[in-house]
Amino acid sequence: MSESQFEAVDGDVVDTIDAFHFGRFYLVQPKGRGHRSGMDAMLLAAMVDADGPIEVADLGAGAGAAGLGVAVRLPEARVTLIEKSPDMVAYAEKTLALPENAPVAARARLIEADVTLKGRERVAAGLPDDIYDHVIMNPPFNHAGDRRAPDGLKAEAHVLLDGLFDAWIRTAGAILKPGGQMSLIARPESIADIITACGKRFGGLEFTMIHPRQGENAIRLLVSGVKGSRARPVFRAPIFMHPEGSHKFLAEVDDLNNGRAAYRRLGPRR
Amino acid sequence: MSESQFEAVDGDVVDTIDAFHFGRFYLVQPKGRGHRSGMDAMLLAAMVDADGPIEVADLGAGAGAAGLGVAVRLPEARVTLIEKSPDMVAYAEKTLALPENAPVAARARLIEADVTLKGRERVAAGLPDDIYDHVIMNPPFNHAGDRRAPDGLKAEAHVLLDGLFDAWIRTAGAILKPGGQMSLIARPESIADIITACGKRFGGLEFTMIHPRQGENAIRLLVSGVKGSRARPVFRAPIFMHPEGSHKFLAEVDDLNNGRAAYRRLGPRR
Repeated sequence: MSESQFEAVDGDVVDTIDAFHFGRFYLVQPKGRGHRSGMDAMLLAAMVDADGPIEVADLGAGAGAAGLGVAVRLPEARVTLIEKSPDMVAYAEKTLALPENAPVAARARLIEADVTLKGRERVAAGLPDDIYDHVIMNPPFNHAGDRRAPDGLKAEAHVLLDGLFDAWIRTAGAILKPGGQMSLIARPESIADIITACGKRFGGLEFTMIHPRQGENAIRLLVSGVKGSRARPVFRAPIFMHPEGSHKFLAEVDDLNNGRAAYRRLGPRR
Repeated sequence: MSESQFEAVDGDVVDTIDAFHFGRFYLVQPKGRGHRSGMDAMLLAAMVDADGPIEVADLGAGAGAAGLGVAVRLPEARVTLIEKSPDMVAYAEKTLALPENAPVAARARLIEADVTLKGRERVAAGLPDDIYDHVIMNPPFNHAGDRRAPDGLKAEAHVLLDGLFDAWIRTAGAILKPGGQMSLIARPESIADIITACGKRFGGLEFTMIHPRQGENAIRLLVSGVKGSRARPVFRAPIFMHPEGSHKFLAEVDDLNNGRAAYRRLGPRR
Protein backbone atom coordinates (compact mmCIF):
# COMPACT_ATOMS: atom_id res chain seq x y z
CA MET A 1 0.00 0.00 0.00
CA SER A 2 0.92 3.67 0.20
CA GLU A 3 4.24 4.10 1.94
CA SER A 4 5.40 7.65 1.27
CA GLN A 5 3.86 10.87 0.15
CA PHE A 6 4.85 13.95 -1.78
CA GLU A 7 2.82 17.06 -2.35
CA ALA A 8 2.48 19.19 -5.47
CA VAL A 9 0.52 22.41 -5.76
CA ASP A 10 -1.64 22.68 -8.89
CA GLY A 11 -3.50 25.98 -8.76
CA ASP A 12 -5.40 26.03 -5.46
CA VAL A 13 -5.52 22.27 -5.19
CA VAL A 14 -2.85 20.35 -3.37
CA ASP A 15 -2.17 16.95 -4.86
CA THR A 16 -0.26 14.12 -3.30
CA ILE A 17 1.87 11.53 -5.00
CA ASP A 18 1.65 8.27 -3.10
CA ALA A 19 3.85 5.25 -3.60
CA PHE A 20 2.15 1.85 -3.82
CA HIS A 21 3.64 -1.63 -3.78
CA PHE A 22 6.92 -0.29 -2.38
CA GLY A 23 7.33 2.19 -5.20
CA ARG A 24 6.40 -0.09 -8.06
CA PHE A 25 3.80 2.53 -9.00
CA TYR A 26 2.64 5.97 -7.86
CA LEU A 27 -0.76 7.62 -7.67
CA VAL A 28 -1.57 11.31 -8.03
CA GLN A 29 -4.53 12.09 -5.76
CA PRO A 30 -6.25 15.19 -4.39
CA LYS A 31 -5.22 15.89 -0.80
CA GLY A 32 -7.86 16.02 1.91
CA ARG A 33 -10.81 15.69 -0.43
CA GLY A 34 -12.21 13.18 -2.88
CA HIS A 35 -11.92 9.44 -2.55
CA ARG A 36 -8.38 8.44 -1.65
CA SER A 37 -7.35 4.96 -2.61
CA GLY A 38 -5.83 2.55 -0.19
CA MET A 39 -6.28 -0.97 0.99
CA ASP A 40 -9.66 -1.52 -0.72
CA ALA A 41 -8.11 -0.87 -4.12
CA MET A 42 -5.11 -3.10 -3.39
CA LEU A 43 -7.25 -6.04 -2.22
CA LEU A 44 -9.40 -5.62 -5.32
CA ALA A 45 -6.28 -5.65 -7.51
CA ALA A 46 -5.21 -8.89 -5.81
CA MET A 47 -8.38 -10.65 -7.02
CA VAL A 48 -7.15 -10.82 -10.61
CA ASP A 49 -5.22 -14.07 -10.96
CA ALA A 50 -4.24 -14.88 -14.52
CA ASP A 51 -1.29 -15.32 -16.84
CA GLY A 52 -0.66 -13.94 -20.27
CA PRO A 53 -1.94 -10.90 -22.12
CA ILE A 54 -5.33 -10.55 -20.45
CA GLU A 55 -7.60 -7.53 -20.86
CA VAL A 56 -8.74 -6.00 -17.55
CA ALA A 57 -11.34 -3.26 -17.04
CA ASP A 58 -11.37 -1.21 -13.81
CA LEU A 59 -14.89 0.25 -13.45
CA GLY A 60 -14.98 3.50 -11.49
CA ALA A 61 -11.20 3.56 -11.51
CA GLY A 62 -10.68 6.90 -9.74
CA ALA A 63 -7.02 7.83 -10.02
CA GLY A 64 -6.28 4.25 -11.18
CA ALA A 65 -5.06 2.51 -8.03
CA ALA A 66 -6.66 -0.92 -8.49
CA GLY A 67 -6.07 -1.13 -12.24
CA LEU A 68 -2.42 -0.15 -11.92
CA GLY A 69 -2.05 -2.60 -9.04
CA VAL A 70 -3.09 -5.35 -11.46
CA ALA A 71 -0.79 -4.10 -14.21
CA VAL A 72 2.20 -4.01 -11.88
CA ARG A 73 1.72 -7.56 -10.56
CA LEU A 74 0.79 -9.13 -13.92
CA PRO A 75 3.42 -8.04 -16.44
CA GLU A 76 1.40 -8.93 -19.54
CA ALA A 77 -1.98 -7.60 -18.41
CA ARG A 78 -3.51 -4.67 -20.32
CA VAL A 79 -5.70 -2.42 -18.18
CA THR A 80 -8.53 -0.05 -19.10
CA LEU A 81 -9.39 2.55 -16.46
CA ILE A 82 -13.01 3.70 -16.73
CA GLU A 83 -14.06 6.76 -14.73
CA LYS A 84 -17.00 9.16 -14.97
CA SER A 85 -15.82 12.16 -12.92
CA PRO A 86 -13.80 14.57 -15.10
CA ASP A 87 -11.98 15.65 -11.94
CA MET A 88 -10.83 12.09 -11.14
CA VAL A 89 -10.09 11.43 -14.82
CA ALA A 90 -7.63 14.34 -14.61
CA TYR A 91 -5.92 12.62 -11.66
CA ALA A 92 -5.76 9.35 -13.58
CA GLU A 93 -4.15 11.23 -16.48
CA LYS A 94 -1.58 12.79 -14.16
CA THR A 95 -0.95 9.36 -12.67
CA LEU A 96 -0.35 7.75 -16.07
CA ALA A 97 1.92 10.64 -17.07
CA LEU A 98 4.29 10.19 -14.10
CA PRO A 99 7.69 9.09 -15.40
CA GLU A 100 7.92 6.52 -12.61
CA ASN A 101 4.76 4.85 -14.00
CA ALA A 102 5.98 4.64 -17.60
CA PRO A 103 6.42 0.82 -17.59
CA VAL A 104 2.84 0.18 -16.42
CA ALA A 105 1.27 3.19 -18.15
CA ALA A 106 2.32 1.63 -21.45
CA ARG A 107 -0.18 -1.16 -20.74
CA ALA A 108 -2.94 1.14 -19.44
CA ARG A 109 -5.52 3.31 -21.16
CA LEU A 110 -8.21 5.62 -19.82
CA ILE A 111 -11.85 6.02 -20.84
CA GLU A 112 -14.02 8.82 -19.46
CA ALA A 113 -17.42 7.14 -19.30
CA ASP A 114 -20.33 6.52 -16.97
CA VAL A 115 -20.30 2.86 -15.95
CA THR A 116 -24.09 2.82 -15.71
CA LEU A 117 -24.68 3.55 -19.41
CA LYS A 118 -26.76 0.94 -21.23
CA GLY A 119 -26.75 -0.72 -24.63
CA ARG A 120 -25.78 1.46 -27.57
CA GLU A 121 -24.81 4.41 -25.37
CA ARG A 122 -22.41 2.20 -23.44
CA VAL A 123 -20.87 0.87 -26.65
CA ALA A 124 -20.60 4.41 -28.04
CA ALA A 125 -18.78 5.46 -24.84
CA GLY A 126 -16.06 2.91 -25.58
CA LEU A 127 -17.39 -0.11 -23.70
CA PRO A 128 -18.34 -2.75 -26.28
CA ASP A 129 -19.60 -6.25 -25.48
CA ASP A 130 -17.50 -9.32 -24.72
CA ILE A 131 -13.97 -7.91 -24.80
CA TYR A 132 -12.55 -8.19 -21.27
CA ASP A 133 -11.16 -11.21 -19.44
CA HIS A 134 -11.51 -9.54 -16.03
CA VAL A 135 -13.61 -6.68 -14.70
CA ILE A 136 -12.83 -5.23 -11.28
CA MET A 137 -14.88 -2.69 -9.36
CA ASN A 138 -15.05 -0.91 -6.02
CA PRO A 139 -18.44 0.79 -6.34
CA PRO A 140 -19.17 3.91 -4.26
CA PHE A 141 -20.61 2.77 -0.98
CA ASN A 142 -21.93 5.36 1.40
CA HIS A 143 -25.59 4.95 2.18
CA ALA A 144 -27.91 7.88 1.70
CA GLY A 145 -28.45 7.74 5.47
CA ASP A 146 -24.77 8.21 6.25
CA ARG A 147 -23.31 11.46 7.35
CA ARG A 148 -22.58 13.02 3.98
CA ALA A 149 -19.03 13.33 2.89
CA PRO A 150 -17.96 16.93 3.46
CA ASP A 151 -17.02 17.82 -0.09
CA GLY A 152 -18.60 17.42 -3.47
CA LEU A 153 -15.88 15.26 -4.98
CA LYS A 154 -15.99 12.72 -2.17
CA ALA A 155 -19.79 12.73 -2.29
CA GLU A 156 -19.64 11.96 -5.98
CA ALA A 157 -17.52 8.88 -5.29
CA HIS A 158 -19.42 7.68 -2.23
CA VAL A 159 -23.15 8.19 -2.67
CA LEU A 160 -24.88 4.86 -3.03
CA LEU A 161 -27.89 5.00 -5.29
CA ASP A 162 -30.64 2.45 -5.47
CA GLY A 163 -29.88 0.04 -8.24
CA LEU A 164 -26.19 0.92 -8.26
CA PHE A 165 -24.98 -2.67 -8.01
CA ASP A 166 -27.45 -3.76 -10.64
CA ALA A 167 -26.17 -1.11 -13.07
CA TRP A 168 -22.48 -1.76 -12.43
CA ILE A 169 -22.80 -5.55 -12.52
CA ARG A 170 -24.96 -5.37 -15.65
CA THR A 171 -22.15 -3.47 -17.39
CA ALA A 172 -19.55 -5.93 -16.11
CA GLY A 173 -21.67 -8.77 -17.50
CA ALA A 174 -21.91 -7.04 -20.88
CA ILE A 175 -18.27 -6.14 -21.44
CA LEU A 176 -16.77 -9.43 -20.16
CA LYS A 177 -16.07 -12.29 -22.51
CA PRO A 178 -18.15 -15.41 -21.79
CA GLY A 179 -16.38 -17.14 -18.92
CA GLY A 180 -14.74 -13.87 -17.87
CA GLN A 181 -14.37 -13.01 -14.19
CA MET A 182 -15.88 -10.11 -12.29
CA SER A 183 -14.32 -9.15 -8.93
CA LEU A 184 -15.50 -6.52 -6.50
CA ILE A 185 -14.97 -5.19 -3.01
CA ALA A 186 -17.93 -3.76 -1.11
CA ARG A 187 -19.42 -3.36 2.32
CA PRO A 188 -20.89 -6.55 3.79
CA GLU A 189 -24.40 -5.09 3.96
CA SER A 190 -24.48 -4.88 0.16
CA ILE A 191 -24.43 -8.66 -0.15
CA ALA A 192 -28.13 -9.04 -1.00
CA ASP A 193 -27.99 -6.33 -3.69
CA ILE A 194 -24.90 -7.97 -5.15
CA ILE A 195 -26.44 -11.47 -5.24
CA THR A 196 -29.62 -10.13 -6.81
CA ALA A 197 -27.66 -8.15 -9.40
CA CYS A 198 -25.54 -11.18 -10.31
CA GLY A 199 -28.75 -13.10 -10.96
CA LYS A 200 -28.24 -15.21 -14.06
CA ARG A 201 -25.40 -13.01 -15.31
CA PHE A 202 -22.76 -14.50 -13.01
CA GLY A 203 -22.38 -17.85 -11.28
CA GLY A 204 -19.69 -19.57 -9.27
CA LEU A 205 -19.93 -16.65 -6.86
CA GLU A 206 -17.30 -16.66 -4.14
CA PHE A 207 -17.78 -14.46 -1.06
CA THR A 208 -15.10 -13.61 1.48
CA MET A 209 -15.74 -11.49 4.55
CA ILE A 210 -12.87 -9.32 5.78
CA HIS A 211 -12.63 -8.81 9.55
CA PRO A 212 -10.04 -6.57 11.23
CA ARG A 213 -9.27 -9.32 13.76
CA GLN A 214 -10.63 -12.63 15.05
CA GLY A 215 -13.77 -11.94 17.06
CA GLU A 216 -14.53 -8.63 15.28
CA ASN A 217 -17.32 -7.76 12.84
CA ALA A 218 -16.71 -7.83 9.10
CA ILE A 219 -15.93 -4.48 7.45
CA ARG A 220 -15.54 -5.48 3.82
CA LEU A 221 -16.72 -8.19 1.45
CA LEU A 222 -14.86 -9.62 -1.55
CA VAL A 223 -16.98 -11.14 -4.31
CA SER A 224 -15.95 -12.83 -7.53
CA GLY A 225 -18.06 -14.54 -10.16
CA VAL A 226 -17.82 -16.02 -13.64
CA LYS A 227 -19.95 -14.76 -16.53
CA GLY A 228 -22.48 -17.38 -17.57
CA SER A 229 -21.44 -19.91 -14.91
CA ARG A 230 -24.14 -21.92 -13.16
CA ALA A 231 -21.91 -23.12 -10.34
CA ARG A 232 -23.19 -22.77 -6.77
CA PRO A 233 -22.08 -19.89 -4.55
CA VAL A 234 -19.37 -20.50 -1.97
CA PHE A 235 -18.87 -18.62 1.31
CA ARG A 236 -15.15 -18.82 1.85
CA ALA A 237 -13.00 -18.70 4.93
CA PRO A 238 -12.86 -15.12 6.19
CA ILE A 239 -9.77 -12.95 5.96
CA PHE A 240 -8.48 -11.44 9.20
CA MET A 241 -6.31 -8.38 8.66
CA HIS A 242 -4.41 -8.04 11.93
CA PRO A 243 -3.29 -10.29 14.80
CA GLU A 244 -5.18 -9.86 18.06
CA GLY A 245 -4.41 -6.56 19.78
CA SER A 246 -2.31 -5.30 16.88
CA HIS A 247 -2.51 -2.94 13.92
CA LYS A 248 0.19 -4.82 12.01
CA PHE A 249 -0.97 -6.69 8.94
CA LEU A 250 -0.86 -10.46 8.92
CA ALA A 251 1.68 -11.72 6.37
CA GLU A 252 -0.92 -13.07 3.93
CA VAL A 253 -2.81 -9.77 3.92
CA ASP A 254 0.37 -7.77 3.57
CA ASP A 255 1.23 -9.85 0.49
CA LEU A 256 -2.19 -9.13 -1.07
CA ASN A 257 -1.85 -5.45 -0.17
CA ASN A 258 1.55 -5.05 -1.76
CA GLY A 259 1.16 -6.99 -4.97
CA ARG A 260 3.20 -10.01 -3.88
CA ALA A 261 0.32 -12.47 -4.15
CA ALA A 262 -3.06 -12.95 -5.80
CA TYR A 263 -6.20 -13.88 -3.90
CA ARG A 264 -7.00 -17.06 -5.80
CA ARG A 265 -10.50 -18.34 -6.50
CA LEU A 266 -11.41 -21.82 -5.29
CA GLY A 267 -13.39 -22.48 -8.46
CA PRO A 268 -12.09 -22.28 -12.03
CA ARG A 269 -10.15 -19.11 -12.71
CA ARG A 270 -10.26 -17.17 -15.96
CA MET B 1 -26.32 -32.84 21.43
CA SER B 2 -27.48 -36.41 21.04
CA GLU B 3 -25.37 -38.74 23.13
CA SER B 4 -27.18 -42.06 23.35
CA GLN B 5 -29.91 -43.82 21.51
CA PHE B 6 -32.67 -46.29 22.25
CA GLU B 7 -35.02 -47.91 19.77
CA ALA B 8 -38.72 -48.61 20.05
CA VAL B 9 -40.86 -50.43 17.50
CA ASP B 10 -44.22 -48.81 16.80
CA GLY B 11 -45.99 -50.88 14.15
CA ASP B 12 -43.59 -51.14 11.20
CA VAL B 13 -41.75 -47.97 12.04
CA VAL B 14 -38.68 -48.01 14.22
CA ASP B 15 -38.35 -44.95 16.39
CA THR B 16 -35.29 -43.81 18.26
CA ILE B 17 -35.12 -41.96 21.54
CA ASP B 18 -32.12 -39.68 21.56
CA ALA B 19 -30.72 -37.88 24.58
CA PHE B 20 -29.88 -34.18 24.17
CA HIS B 21 -27.99 -31.86 26.48
CA PHE B 22 -26.55 -34.82 28.42
CA GLY B 23 -29.97 -36.27 29.14
CA ARG B 24 -31.72 -33.05 30.10
CA PHE B 25 -34.28 -33.89 27.43
CA TYR B 26 -35.05 -36.67 24.94
CA LEU B 27 -36.41 -36.70 21.43
CA VAL B 28 -38.50 -39.41 19.77
CA GLN B 29 -37.58 -39.51 16.08
CA PRO B 30 -38.15 -41.85 13.13
CA LYS B 31 -35.09 -43.97 12.44
CA GLY B 32 -33.40 -43.76 9.04
CA ARG B 33 -36.02 -41.53 7.48
CA GLY B 34 -37.42 -38.04 7.94
CA HIS B 35 -35.45 -35.08 9.18
CA ARG B 36 -33.36 -36.00 12.20
CA SER B 37 -32.46 -33.16 14.51
CA GLY B 38 -28.93 -32.45 15.59
CA MET B 39 -26.52 -29.60 15.79
CA ASP B 40 -28.57 -27.18 13.68
CA ALA B 41 -31.44 -27.38 16.14
CA MET B 42 -29.13 -26.97 19.13
CA LEU B 43 -27.38 -23.89 17.70
CA LEU B 44 -30.78 -22.42 16.90
CA ALA B 45 -31.92 -23.05 20.48
CA ALA B 46 -28.80 -21.26 21.74
CA MET B 47 -29.87 -18.04 19.97
CA VAL B 48 -32.63 -17.36 22.50
CA ASP B 49 -31.08 -15.30 25.28
CA ALA B 50 -33.59 -13.95 27.76
CA ASP B 51 -34.70 -14.17 31.36
CA GLY B 52 -38.13 -14.59 32.84
CA PRO B 53 -41.37 -16.08 31.51
CA ILE B 54 -40.85 -15.41 27.80
CA GLU B 55 -43.07 -16.90 25.09
CA VAL B 56 -41.12 -18.70 22.36
CA ALA B 57 -42.47 -20.09 19.06
CA ASP B 58 -40.54 -22.79 17.18
CA LEU B 59 -41.70 -22.65 13.54
CA GLY B 60 -41.41 -25.98 11.75
CA ALA B 61 -40.53 -27.64 15.02
CA GLY B 62 -40.29 -31.23 13.78
CA ALA B 63 -40.07 -33.51 16.82
CA GLY B 64 -39.37 -30.44 18.98
CA ALA B 65 -35.58 -30.40 19.32
CA ALA B 66 -34.89 -26.65 19.13
CA GLY B 67 -37.93 -25.59 21.15
CA LEU B 68 -37.18 -28.07 23.92
CA GLY B 69 -33.55 -27.02 23.87
CA VAL B 70 -34.71 -23.51 24.71
CA ALA B 71 -37.10 -24.71 27.42
CA VAL B 72 -34.39 -26.77 29.10
CA ARG B 73 -31.84 -23.94 29.22
CA LEU B 74 -34.32 -21.19 30.19
CA PRO B 75 -36.33 -22.50 33.13
CA GLU B 76 -39.16 -19.94 32.84
CA ALA B 77 -39.55 -19.98 29.04
CA ARG B 78 -42.82 -21.24 27.57
CA VAL B 79 -42.46 -22.87 24.17
CA THR B 80 -44.97 -23.41 21.36
CA LEU B 81 -43.97 -26.05 18.80
CA ILE B 82 -45.58 -25.41 15.41
CA GLU B 83 -45.38 -28.18 12.82
CA LYS B 84 -47.32 -28.92 9.63
CA SER B 85 -46.54 -32.58 8.97
CA PRO B 86 -49.00 -34.85 10.86
CA ASP B 87 -46.29 -37.49 10.91
CA MET B 88 -43.78 -35.20 12.67
CA VAL B 89 -46.51 -33.84 14.93
CA ALA B 90 -46.98 -37.42 16.13
CA TYR B 91 -43.28 -37.58 16.99
CA ALA B 92 -43.50 -34.27 18.83
CA GLU B 93 -46.44 -35.69 20.80
CA LYS B 94 -44.46 -38.81 21.69
CA THR B 95 -41.54 -36.59 22.67
CA LEU B 96 -43.67 -34.46 24.99
CA ALA B 97 -45.23 -37.60 26.50
CA LEU B 98 -41.89 -39.13 27.56
CA PRO B 99 -41.74 -39.24 31.36
CA GLU B 100 -38.14 -37.97 31.23
CA ASN B 101 -39.39 -34.80 29.51
CA ALA B 102 -42.14 -34.03 32.04
CA PRO B 103 -40.40 -30.97 33.55
CA VAL B 104 -39.97 -29.27 30.17
CA ALA B 105 -43.14 -30.63 28.58
CA ALA B 106 -45.09 -28.76 31.24
CA ARG B 107 -43.89 -25.54 29.60
CA ALA B 108 -44.41 -26.71 26.01
CA ARG B 109 -47.45 -26.94 23.78
CA LEU B 110 -47.93 -28.18 20.24
CA ILE B 111 -49.86 -26.66 17.33
CA GLU B 112 -50.39 -28.55 14.06
CA ALA B 113 -50.35 -25.72 11.54
CA ASP B 114 -48.76 -24.63 8.28
CA VAL B 115 -46.30 -21.83 9.02
CA THR B 116 -47.00 -20.25 5.63
CA LEU B 117 -50.68 -19.52 6.33
CA LYS B 118 -51.63 -15.86 5.99
CA GLY B 119 -53.89 -13.42 7.83
CA ARG B 120 -57.15 -14.81 9.16
CA GLU B 121 -56.26 -18.41 8.27
CA ARG B 122 -53.07 -18.12 10.28
CA VAL B 123 -54.92 -16.68 13.26
CA ALA B 124 -57.57 -19.40 12.98
CA ALA B 125 -54.80 -22.04 13.01
CA GLY B 126 -53.70 -20.81 16.44
CA LEU B 127 -51.08 -18.20 15.44
CA PRO B 128 -52.42 -14.77 16.41
CA ASP B 129 -50.55 -11.48 16.03
CA ASP B 130 -48.08 -9.98 18.50
CA ILE B 131 -47.88 -12.67 21.18
CA TYR B 132 -44.34 -14.10 21.14
CA ASP B 133 -41.12 -12.67 22.55
CA HIS B 134 -38.95 -14.96 20.41
CA VAL B 135 -39.53 -16.90 17.21
CA ILE B 136 -36.98 -19.49 16.12
CA MET B 137 -36.88 -21.36 12.84
CA ASN B 138 -34.76 -23.79 10.86
CA PRO B 139 -36.57 -23.69 7.52
CA PRO B 140 -36.29 -26.67 5.15
CA PHE B 141 -33.29 -26.07 2.94
CA ASN B 142 -32.70 -28.44 0.07
CA HIS B 143 -32.81 -26.77 -3.31
CA ALA B 144 -35.12 -28.15 -5.97
CA GLY B 145 -31.95 -28.91 -7.94
CA ASP B 146 -30.53 -31.11 -5.18
CA ARG B 147 -30.64 -34.87 -5.28
CA ARG B 148 -34.02 -35.50 -3.75
CA ALA B 149 -34.17 -36.97 -0.31
CA PRO B 150 -34.92 -40.67 -0.67
CA ASP B 151 -38.16 -40.78 1.31
CA GLY B 152 -41.30 -38.72 1.37
CA LEU B 153 -41.01 -37.60 4.98
CA LYS B 154 -37.52 -36.23 4.53
CA ALA B 155 -38.55 -34.58 1.26
CA GLU B 156 -41.42 -32.89 3.06
CA ALA B 157 -38.94 -31.37 5.52
CA HIS B 158 -36.23 -30.46 3.03
CA VAL B 159 -37.75 -29.16 -0.20
CA LEU B 160 -37.05 -25.47 -0.58
CA LEU B 161 -39.78 -23.62 -2.37
CA ASP B 162 -39.50 -20.21 -3.95
CA GLY B 163 -40.70 -17.63 -1.49
CA LEU B 164 -40.19 -19.93 1.47
CA PHE B 165 -38.16 -17.47 3.51
CA ASP B 166 -40.57 -14.71 2.70
CA ALA B 167 -43.50 -16.78 3.96
CA TRP B 168 -41.78 -17.98 7.14
CA ILE B 169 -40.32 -14.59 8.01
CA ARG B 170 -43.66 -12.90 7.29
CA THR B 171 -45.30 -15.21 9.85
CA ALA B 172 -42.51 -14.59 12.35
CA GLY B 173 -43.03 -10.85 11.89
CA ALA B 174 -46.75 -11.21 12.48
CA ILE B 175 -46.74 -13.37 15.61
CA LEU B 176 -43.87 -11.58 17.39
CA LYS B 177 -44.53 -8.72 19.78
CA PRO B 178 -43.06 -5.39 18.61
CA GLY B 179 -39.39 -5.53 19.57
CA GLY B 180 -39.49 -9.32 19.60
CA GLN B 181 -36.57 -11.31 18.26
CA MET B 182 -36.49 -13.73 15.32
CA SER B 183 -33.62 -16.21 15.08
CA LEU B 184 -32.91 -18.68 12.33
CA ILE B 185 -30.31 -21.08 11.03
CA ALA B 186 -29.98 -21.61 7.29
CA ARG B 187 -27.51 -22.34 4.53
CA PRO B 188 -25.23 -19.43 3.65
CA GLU B 189 -26.53 -19.23 0.08
CA SER B 190 -29.96 -18.25 1.43
CA ILE B 191 -28.61 -14.94 2.72
CA ALA B 192 -30.07 -12.78 -0.06
CA ASP B 193 -33.54 -14.35 0.29
CA ILE B 194 -33.37 -13.83 4.04
CA ILE B 195 -32.33 -10.17 3.79
CA THR B 196 -35.03 -9.49 1.22
CA ALA B 197 -37.67 -11.23 3.34
CA CYS B 198 -36.66 -9.28 6.45
CA GLY B 199 -37.15 -6.06 4.47
CA LYS B 200 -38.85 -3.57 6.76
CA ARG B 201 -40.19 -6.27 9.06
CA PHE B 202 -36.91 -6.82 10.91
CA GLY B 203 -33.89 -4.65 11.58
CA GLY B 204 -30.78 -4.93 13.68
CA LEU B 205 -29.96 -8.04 11.64
CA GLU B 206 -26.94 -9.96 12.88
CA PHE B 207 -25.33 -12.55 10.60
CA THR B 208 -22.83 -15.18 11.70
CA MET B 209 -21.21 -17.63 9.30
CA ILE B 210 -20.37 -21.09 10.68
CA HIS B 211 -17.23 -22.74 9.29
CA PRO B 212 -16.11 -26.26 10.23
CA ARG B 213 -12.54 -25.01 10.74
CA GLN B 214 -10.34 -21.98 10.05
CA GLY B 215 -9.65 -21.83 6.31
CA GLU B 216 -12.79 -23.81 5.34
CA ASN B 217 -15.95 -22.62 3.61
CA ALA B 218 -19.04 -21.70 5.61
CA ILE B 219 -21.69 -24.41 5.92
CA ARG B 220 -24.35 -22.63 7.97
CA LEU B 221 -25.55 -19.11 8.67
CA LEU B 222 -27.10 -17.79 11.89
CA VAL B 223 -29.39 -14.76 11.56
CA SER B 224 -31.21 -12.80 14.23
CA GLY B 225 -33.30 -9.65 13.91
CA VAL B 226 -35.63 -7.46 15.92
CA LYS B 227 -39.19 -6.75 14.81
CA GLY B 228 -39.59 -3.12 13.79
CA SER B 229 -35.95 -2.20 14.44
CA ARG B 230 -34.23 0.15 12.00
CA ALA B 231 -30.72 -0.63 13.23
CA ARG B 232 -28.06 -1.43 10.62
CA PRO B 233 -27.07 -5.01 9.85
CA VAL B 234 -23.92 -6.45 11.39
CA PHE B 235 -21.74 -9.23 9.98
CA ARG B 236 -20.29 -10.82 13.06
CA ALA B 237 -17.14 -12.76 13.73
CA PRO B 238 -17.55 -16.25 12.28
CA ILE B 239 -17.92 -19.36 14.41
CA PHE B 240 -15.43 -22.16 13.83
CA MET B 241 -16.67 -25.54 15.01
CA HIS B 242 -13.51 -27.63 15.30
CA PRO B 243 -9.80 -27.06 15.84
CA GLU B 244 -7.60 -27.58 12.80
CA GLY B 245 -7.30 -31.24 11.82
CA SER B 246 -9.85 -32.36 14.40
CA HIS B 247 -13.49 -33.40 14.66
CA LYS B 248 -13.70 -32.37 18.31
CA PHE B 249 -15.87 -29.37 19.05
CA LEU B 250 -14.23 -26.19 20.29
CA ALA B 251 -15.33 -25.43 23.85
CA GLU B 252 -17.51 -22.43 22.94
CA VAL B 253 -19.37 -24.43 20.30
CA ASP B 254 -19.77 -27.40 22.62
CA ASP B 255 -21.35 -25.08 25.18
CA LEU B 256 -23.84 -23.77 22.61
CA ASN B 257 -24.53 -27.32 21.44
CA ASN B 258 -25.27 -28.63 24.89
CA GLY B 259 -27.34 -25.87 26.38
CA ARG B 260 -24.62 -24.49 28.65
CA ALA B 261 -24.51 -21.07 26.97
CA ALA B 262 -26.54 -18.72 24.82
CA TYR B 263 -25.25 -17.15 21.62
CA ARG B 264 -25.73 -13.54 22.62
CA ARG B 265 -26.65 -10.74 20.23
CA LEU B 266 -24.33 -7.74 20.01
CA GLY B 267 -27.29 -5.38 19.70
CA PRO B 268 -30.16 -5.03 22.15
CA ARG B 269 -31.65 -8.36 23.19
CA ARG B 270 -35.29 -9.00 23.83
